[in-house]
Amino acid sequence: MSARQAVPLEKSYLLLNHGPVTLISSAHAGKQNVMAVAWTMPLDFSPPKVAVVISSAAYSRELIEASGEFVVNIPSKAMAASVLSVGSESGRDVDKFTKYAIGTQPASKVGAPLVDGCVGWLECRLIPEAHNQQHYDLLFGEIVAAWADPRVFNDGRWTFPAEEMKTIHYVAGGSFFTTGAAFEA
Amino acid sequence: MSARQAVPLEKSYLLLNHGPVTLISSAHAGKQNVMAVAWTMPLDFSPPKVAVVISSAAYSRELIEASGEFVVNIPSKAMAASVLSVGSESGRDVDKFTKYAIGTQPASKVGAPLVDGCVGWLECRLIPEAHNQQHYDLLFGEIVAAWADPRVFNDGRWTFPAEEMKTIHYVAGGSFFTTGAAFEA
Repeated sequence: MSARQAVPLEKSYLLLNHGPVTLISSAHAGKQNVMAVAWTMPLDFSPPKVAVVISSAAYSRELIEASGEFVVNIPSKAMAASVLSVGSESGRDVDKFTKYAIGTQPASKVGAPLVDGCVGWLECRLIPEAHNQQHYDLLFGEIVAAWADPRVFNDGRWTFPAEEMKTIHYVAGGSFFTTGAAFEA
Repeated sequence: MSARQAVPLEKSYLLLNHGPVTLISSAHAGKQNVMAVAWTMPLDFSPPKVAVVISSAAYSRELIEASGEFVVNIPSKAMAASVLSVGSESGRDVDKFTKYAIGTQPASKVGAPLVDGCVGWLECRLIPEAHNQQHYDLLFGEIVAAWADPRVFNDGRWTFPAEEMKTIHYVAGGSFFTTGAAFEA
């Protein structure tokens, strides 16, 4: 497990603000799953919320709607192959954590696990919005706890001490971009 | 004006998939405006849709809700200072296009303008969803036309021939990341 440090809720949107790809983890009634989601964004500062698109065909969708909880995990470049793997297969008939040797740790406020090797984690409670879920596959979550690897995100600032620790952005077909150079306008 | 080439609608989500910051342009009844928005994501492939968070206090919100149209512009690094400027001031009492010398071109299917110097453009029709707009400041748009600078996005692929042509990702407080190196997992 990567080191992790609590991120104040009012700064938790910063983990998503630059648009990295995410892993969404979920758990319900003894089952758990993880999938890759590029279509995620902050939705509000206070209370902090996220919006996430998850297909109604996804097994994760069942677990999230049944448990009312999920975790948005921010993977590093070192996780890119796993991101692609868990994004290419359903967890309905296979335990992707076991198959791809992805470790987890318990979250603090939700039943869904924190995915090892990530650099940021947002524990979320589903905000039920039936119309959005049914018509747009769009789920809202209130962020109830947030964590980051302090080597990479500390005191509200990203730093990437190694190439493999950079966050990543999904394009399509197995292609990603790393997060590039920081600059001030 | 940058060169631009039509992007097939089914590939238009690729302009946003990696999470760049955007400029949202709008126009209604002889007024127009532009603002910076980091909280934007694709919402659907078919028909292609986007989700955008725009505060109810924003002048752009009035123009978009009155006209039912907006454009999601994807700026390059060369535009970063303009992104910050138009994101820091309301267009209610000032014409930001004039003040910051930002050129525009007419869009093809909506009244909102295409912002010069950007590398991608998504012309959108607002999908009215009163509850989301009022409770979450969340607007949905159907993408009705899309364009890209073919030097940067061509045949569904991003290439960044120069540092200043890279797309950018917003952090906070005037800080950005460029889009980094492409890699395959």
